[in-house]
Amino acid sequence: MIREILLAATLSISCAVPVYGAEVVTSPDGDIRLSFDLEKGNPFYSVDFKGKQVIAPSRMGLELYSENGRNTFSSQGEKAAADALKLCSGFELANTTRDSLSETWTPVWGEEAEILNKYNSMIVRLKQPQFDRVMNIEFRVFDDGIAFRYEFPAQPHLNYFVIKEEMSQFAMTGDHWAYWIPGDYDTQEYNYTKSRLSEIRGLFPSKVNPDNASTTVFSPTGVQTSLQLKTDDGIYLNIHEAACINYPTMHLNLNDTTMTFTSWLTPDNQGRKGYMQTPCATPWRTVIITDDARDILASRIAYNLNEPSKIEDTSWIKPVKYIGVWWEMITGKSSWNYTDDVFSVKLGETDYSKTKPNGRHGANNEKVRRYIDFAAEHGFDQVLVEGWNEGWEDWFGQSKDYVFDFVTPYPDFDFKALNDYAHSKGVKLMMHHETSGSVRNYERHLDKAYKLMADNGYNSVKSGYVGNIIPRGEYHYSQWLNNHYLYAIQKAADNRIMVNAHEASRPTGVARTYPNWIGNESARGTEYQAMGGNDKWHTSILPFTRLQGGPMDYTPGIFEFDLSKFTPGNNSKIASTIPGQLALYVTMYSPLQMAADLPEHYEQHLDAFQFIKDVPLEWERSVYLEAEPMEYVTIARKDKNSDEWYVGSTAGTADRKSTISLSFLEPGRKYDATIYAEAPDANTVDGQQRYKITHKTVTSKSKLTLNALAGGGYAISIKPLK
Amino acid sequence: MIREILLAATLSISCAVPVYGAEVVTSPDGDIRLSFDLEKGNPFYSVDFKGKQVIAPSRMGLELYSENGRNTFSSQGEKAAADALKLCSGFELANTTRDSLSETWTPVWGEEAEILNKYNSMIVRLKQPQFDRVMNIEFRVFDDGIAFRYEFPAQPHLNYFVIKEEMSQFAMTGDHWAYWIPGDYDTQEYNYTKSRLSEIRGLFPSKVNPDNASTTVFSPTGVQTSLQLKTDDGIYLNIHEAACINYPTMHLNLNDTTMTFTSWLTPDNQGRKGYMQTPCATPWRTVIITDDARDILASRIAYNLNEPSKIEDTSWIKPVKYIGVWWEMITGKSSWNYTDDVFSVKLGETDYSKTKPNGRHGANNEKVRRYIDFAAEHGFDQVLVEGWNEGWEDWFGQSKDYVFDFVTPYPDFDFKALNDYAHSKGVKLMMHHETSGSVRNYERHLDKAYKLMADNGYNSVKSGYVGNIIPRGEYHYSQWLNNHYLYAIQKAADNRIMVNAHEASRPTGVARTYPNWIGNESARGTEYQAMGGNDKWHTSILPFTRLQGGPMDYTPGIFEFDLSKFTPGNNSKIASTIPGQLALYVTMYSPLQMAADLPEHYEQHLDAFQFIKDVPLEWERSVYLEAEPMEYVTIARKDKNSDEWYVGSTAGTADRKSTISLSFLEPGRKYDATIYAEAPDANTVDGQQRYKITHKTVTSKSKLTLNALAGGGYAISIKPLK
Repeated sequence: MIREILLAATLSISCAVPVYGAEVVTSPDGDIRLSFDLEKGNPFYSVDFKGKQVIAPSRMGLELYSENGRNTFSSQGEKAAADALKLCSGFELANTTRDSLSETWTPVWGEEAEILNKYNSMIVRLKQPQFDRVMNIEFRVFDDGIAFRYEFPAQPHLNYFVIKEEMSQFAMTGDHWAYWIPGDYDTQEYNYTKSRLSEIRGLFPSKVNPDNASTTVFSPTGVQTSLQLKTDDGIYLNIHEAACINYPTMHLNLNDTTMTFTSWLTPDNQGRKGYMQTPCATPWRTVIITDDARDILASRIAYNLNEPSKIEDTSWIKPVKYIGVWWEMITGKSSWNYTDDVFSVKLGETDYSKTKPNGRHGANNEKVRRYIDFAAEHGFDQVLVEGWNEGWEDWFGQSKDYVFDFVTPYPDFDFKALNDYAHSKGVKLMMHHETSGSVRNYERHLDKAYKLMADNGYNSVKSGYVGNIIPRGEYHYSQWLNNHYLYAIQKAADNRIMVNAHEASRPTGVARTYPNWIGNESARGTEYQAMGGNDKWHTSILPFTRLQGGPMDYTPGIFEFDLSKFTPGNNSKIASTIPGQLALYVTMYSPLQMAADLPEHYEQHLDAFQFIKDVPLEWERSVYLEAEPMEYVTIARKDKNSDEWYVGSTAGTADRKSTISLSFLEPGRKYDATIYAEAPDANTVDGQQRYKITHKTVTSKSKLTLNALAGGGYAISIKPLK
Repeated sequence: MIREILLAATLSISCAVPVYGAEVVTSPDGDIRLSFDLEKGNPFYSVDFKGKQVIAPSRMGLELYSENGRNTFSSQGEKAAADALKLCSGFELANTTRDSLSETWTPVWGEEAEILNKYNSMIVRLKQPQFDRVMNIEFRVFDDGIAFRYEFPAQPHLNYFVIKEEMSQFAMTGDHWAYWIPGDYDTQEYNYTKSRLSEIRGLFPSKVNPDNASTTVFSPTGVQTSLQLKTDDGIYLNIHEAACINYPTMHLNLNDTTMTFTSWLTPDNQGRKGYMQTPCATPWRTVIITDDARDILASRIAYNLNEPSKIEDTSWIKPVKYIGVWWEMITGKSSWNYTDDVFSVKLGETDYSKTKPNGRHGANNEKVRRYIDFAAEHGFDQVLVEGWNEGWEDWFGQSKDYVFDFVTPYPDFDFKALNDYAHSKGVKLMMHHETSGSVRNYERHLDKAYKLMADNGYNSVKSGYVGNIIPRGEYHYSQWLNNHYLYAIQKAADNRIMVNAHEASRPTGVARTYPNWIGNESARGTEYQAMGGNDKWHTSILPFTRLQGGPMDYTPGIFEFDLSKFTPGNNSKIASTIPGQLALYVTMYSPLQMAADLPEHYEQHLDAFQFIKDVPLEWERSVYLEAEPMEYVTIARKDKNSDEWYVGSTAGTADRKSTISLSFLEPGRKYDATIYAEAPDANTVDGQQRYKITHKTVTSKSKLTLNALAGGGYAISIKPLK
C-alpha cells in the first residue's frame, strides 16, 4: 500500500557557490580531494576525483523540531527561535584538525582475513555564537571514497533535540546513470531500474510494488541507499551510510532540476526523524568513488567506519550452511499453518490438539527428520524450520499484537525429539521467529524465546518482520525499529545466538561491532522467484547495492525451475540456470548460505550439488575479476582453511563471454579446476537445468573463457593437485 | 499542556423515542427497572428507579474504522461498506435470555470480609443479517445499579475490528448536579467542581490544569468517570466502568442541549480507539442508582463485574502500612537527584562516583536508616525510598527513552546494606520504579528489576508514569497503556510482588482479578498539598468518584501544615487538621496506607500518631454512617483481626456537627472510645495542629456528636473493655 506520496522538497540554495576549498583533505593516494567551506554561515563540501569534480558544492547540516522548549531560544525573539532550529546555518568556523590512520583489523567473518582501514581525516569544528552551540563535522577520505558525519559534543544549549530533517546533500555533476529502487520506509524488496537521474520521476510510479506486505514511498524521486551511480565519463559513485545506530535509516531525495540528492530520514509515527541526546553523532554518510567498478565490490568503507566488535569472545560465532523447510511453503507446496479449520487464533486459547490437521503442514516430524537426514548426509550445519510454532493460521495483516509466543510448537512438531535427533546427527536446528511486525510482542517474549534456544543448543535464529509494524504507525526503518533490531542482536549475543533478520533495515556495517548479526534479507530475495520472479540482472546489481553494508541471506541454490512440477498451480518460471545459481555462493558473499531447494531436487543433480557442498563460507582473500553494475560480477575467493579457490560469475542484462586470468593462484602450483558451466543448449526459459561439469588442470598462468547466459553464470572450484 | 480541544460531537438522534420496554429486567428488590428495545434497528435502553425515569432512552453500540479490509463489505457497494462500519444500527433481535445470580465471595483485602454479588441479568442477542454478524448486549441489574457491556462472539464476518468510537449513551432526565473533573487522556490529577450539567462548558477552561506533567483534554464538555451526579429530587447516579481490560479508558462527553452523555474512548497515537479480536467483550458500563448517598460508598458493582482472582495462591498478598523518604522531596526539603553537577545523564556512561554530591539527596544511607529505625519502632511494614537509583538529574520532559534502569543505586545508597538493615529490624524496603512515561524502556527492564526485588525480599513496588508516554503520542489511558499496566501487574505477580501504580489509569475493579494490584494514585493526591493545595472538599468527594473501582494511595497523615518551617520557600498552606488527616485512614479505604509526613513531625505528636499506628488495613465490616458528596463522609469499620472499631469522618465545603449512633457495636458490650477531634480553637489556616484526644466509655446505645471543620474531620478508635 502506498500510504503517501509527497512532493520532493525543493531546497532553495540562494547563496552563491562557496569559496572553493577553504578546508581540504585528500585521500592517502591523492586521487580524492574533499573541500569544506562556510558560505554566509552555511556549511558546504565538494569532492574531486583525479582532478574532476564528482560532488559539486553540497549543503550540510540538520533542521530541528520546535517542540523541545529547552532549546528553542524563544526568549530571544521569534527570529532567534526559528534560527535556533537550524543546525545548517549561522555557523562560524572554530577550528579544524587533521589526522590520518592506517591499520589492519581482523574480521570475525568476511571476504578476507584482514581488512585495511586507511584514511586521512579532518574535523571541522563549527560554532553558533548566537546560541552558544557547537557542531563538528568529521570527514574521512579513503582511497576508495569519502565519509562524513555530524558530531554533537555534550553542551548545555544542545542537550536533547529532535530532528526534523537531515540536510546532507550530494550534488551530482550531471544527469548520471542510476541503478535505483524506490525510496520506501518499509521495504527494499524491489527489482532494480537503471535510468538517467532525470528519468526517475517518470518511471517511479511503475516501479513501486503495491503488493509488498508493507510499502510506504514518500517522494516520486526518492530512492534508497546504497545507490549506485555511473557518470558518462566512467566514474562510479556509490552513496550509502555506515553505522546507522540510534538513528533512522537514510533515503535520498533527488531534486531533478539541480540533480542534487538530499538526505531523507525515515520518520517515526509522529513524523519526527530522530531523538538525540548529546554527546552523540549521526551515522556516516559515505560515497565510494572510483573509475573501476570492481573497487565498489572490494570497498570496506562501511565496515571501516563502524566500531570494533563489542563482543569479546566471538569463538561461538560460526558461519552457517543450511537447508530448510521453507521453499516448499514459499512455492505453495506446503503450508506454515497446521490446520485450515481455524480462521482466528488466540494463543493459549486455541486448542490445536482439537483441530483437524490440513495434511500440508511443512514443519511436521517426518519431514523435518528427512531434512535432518539430508543435512547430515551432505554436511550442512543447520536445518531451518518455519511454521513450527502455533499461530500461523492467523498471523498476518490484522495489526495483531500477540501473534506468536515463539516457544509453543504445533502438535506435529516434537520440539525435543527433533532437536535431539538433529544433535545426534551432528546437525543443529535453526530457530525461526516471525514477529509479523509486532515488535512490542517480540520484545516481551525475547528473553524466554532466546533462553529456550540456548537451553536446547539452537545457536542461530532467522527473525522476520513481515507486515506493518506495531507500535502502529511506525515504519520498518525508523529510529525506534533500528533500535529494536540492535536490541534483539544484543540480547541474542547475551545468549550466544547468531541472528539473520529478514525485513529489517538494510545493513550499514554494524555487523563489525556485533558479528553475531550474520545475516539480513533487506532486499528482494530468492523467494520472489516463486512469486513472479526477479529480473535477470538482479544478482548482478545486488553486490553493488544491497551487499554494501553487510551480507544478505539471498537463499540461492534453486535446481528445479519449473515450480508447477511439484506445486501445481504455481506457474512462476525462474530465469536462471543451475550454474548461475552455484555462482551466487561466491558472488553474493554471506557467512550464512542456504541451499534453498528441496532435498529431492538436489538428489537429481548431485554432481552439481557438489559445488554447494564444497564452497566455503569464510575466505582468506577475494579477487574481483570482472564487474559492471547490472551486467556481470566475477569473483575468485580463496578458502580461509585450505588452498582451494572458488570462482563465481553472473551475467545480468545480456548473455556474455567471460575471460578470466587465474593469476591469483600460487605461481608454479597445479590445480584441478572443476567448471560448472551452462551447456551449449541451456537457456533460462526451459533449459535452466542443462549444465556441463568439466575438469581442467590450471596454473596461475591459465586463462579461462566461459559463456554465461543473462540471468545465469558459472562456478568453478579450484583445488591444488597433490 | 492542552494538546487539543475538540468540539463535542453532537449525536443526532433522528428517530422517535422507542417503544417503551420491549425487553425488561429489574433489580432483585424491584426498585430498578431497565428496558431495552430496537427502534428502526437502533438499540436503546432506559432505566427507571422507584417508578421514575433516571436514564432516558439512550443509544448503544459502536462505530468501526474502515481500515480493516476483511470486514468492510466493500464488495457489496458503497452504502453497505459504510453500514458495515456501524455496530450501532441495522440490528434485528435474535433472542433474549434472562438469568440471575446471588453469591458471596471473599476478597483478598477490602472493606468487608465477604461481598454479595446479586443481580438479575438479560442477554439481548442482536444480528445484522446484511453482514451475517451478531453482537450481544448483556445487562445486569443489581439492587444498587445497572451495568451493560457489548459482547462479540467468534464469527467469520466480525473477526478483527478497530473501534472508531463507542456510542454508549447515558441520557439524563434533567439539568442535574455533577461533581466533575475535566475529561483528559493523560491525567486525573484535578480538583473537583460541583455544577449543573449546563454549567460545565462555561467552567471547563478554568478547571483544566495546564501545569500537570501531561494533560490532554478533548472536549469542553468532556468529563471523567466515575462521575457523581445528583438530581433535584435527591437521586444519586454514579457513572463508571468495570473490568477495563484490553480496551481504552472511557470518558463521557456531554451534549448539553439534550443533557446526554456519550462514551468517549481514549485514542491511540493513530486516533483509533481499540483493536479487537472476537470473541471479546467491552468493559462494563455501570450506573449506581440510589436515593441514599451512603449506598454509593457501599456499592461493590465494580468488583462484582470483574473476574475472580487469577492468582491462585494469594497468601503473599498483604496490606502495607508504610512511611517513606518522599514528602521531604515533594515539599522541596530534599532532592531525588544525587548531584547538581550533571545536566544530562546517559545511564552507564555517567560516572556518579566522580560527581559532587549536592548534599540534599534524600535517599542516602544515613537518612534511610533513620526511617527504617522509625518504622521498626512504630510497627510500620515498609519504608518507601524514592530517588535511590541513578538518573534523577535528567529524568523528565525530554521524551527520553532510556531514563532509568531500575537496578543501579546511587553511590550513597548501599542497596545491600540498607536492605539487610531493614530486614534485621523486621521492616521491608518498598521499591520505587519511576518510568518517566517511558513504557518501552520499563518493559525491557521489568524482568531484571523484578528479579532484583524478589532476590532481595522487596515485595511491593510503587511505580510511576510521570510525563508524556513513550511510545510517543500514546496517552496514559489508551488501550496500549492499559495493556501495559496489566502486563506489569502480571509480571509482578509472577514474582510475588504487589504493585501501587501512580499516574496509571483509574481503576475499574480489576484488583479483584489481580489482587496484587494493591494501589493506584490516579487522582490528585496529598502531594498537591505541597504544590498549591487541594480543595477542602477533596477528600469528601474522592470516596464517591476516584475510589469507585479501587483503592487510592492518597498518602495522608500530614501533621506539619506549615511547610516553610522545614522547607524554606515552600509557602503552601494545607487546609486540613490533624484529626482530619487521621480520619482519612478510615474514610479513604486502601490496603496500602502511608504515613506521609516526616518522622520528626510525628515525634512531636505521638499521641495523635497513635491512631495511625492502631488503624488496621483489613476490615471485617464497614458501616457507612453519613455521606453526601463533597459535604461529608463518616464511616465505621470493624477490624478483621479483632473486635476493634474505627471511625473516620471528614467535612467538605462547610464546618459541621456530626451525630452518629454506635449501634453497630456488639450489644451489651462496653468499649473505650479514643476520640481524636479538633480543639475548639482549631482552624485550617494556622490552627491545624490544635486537637484534643479524649476517652469515653461507649456501648451500642451510645450516640456521639462531634464537630468537624471544613477540610478537617475526626477519628475514633473503639476498643472493647476487658
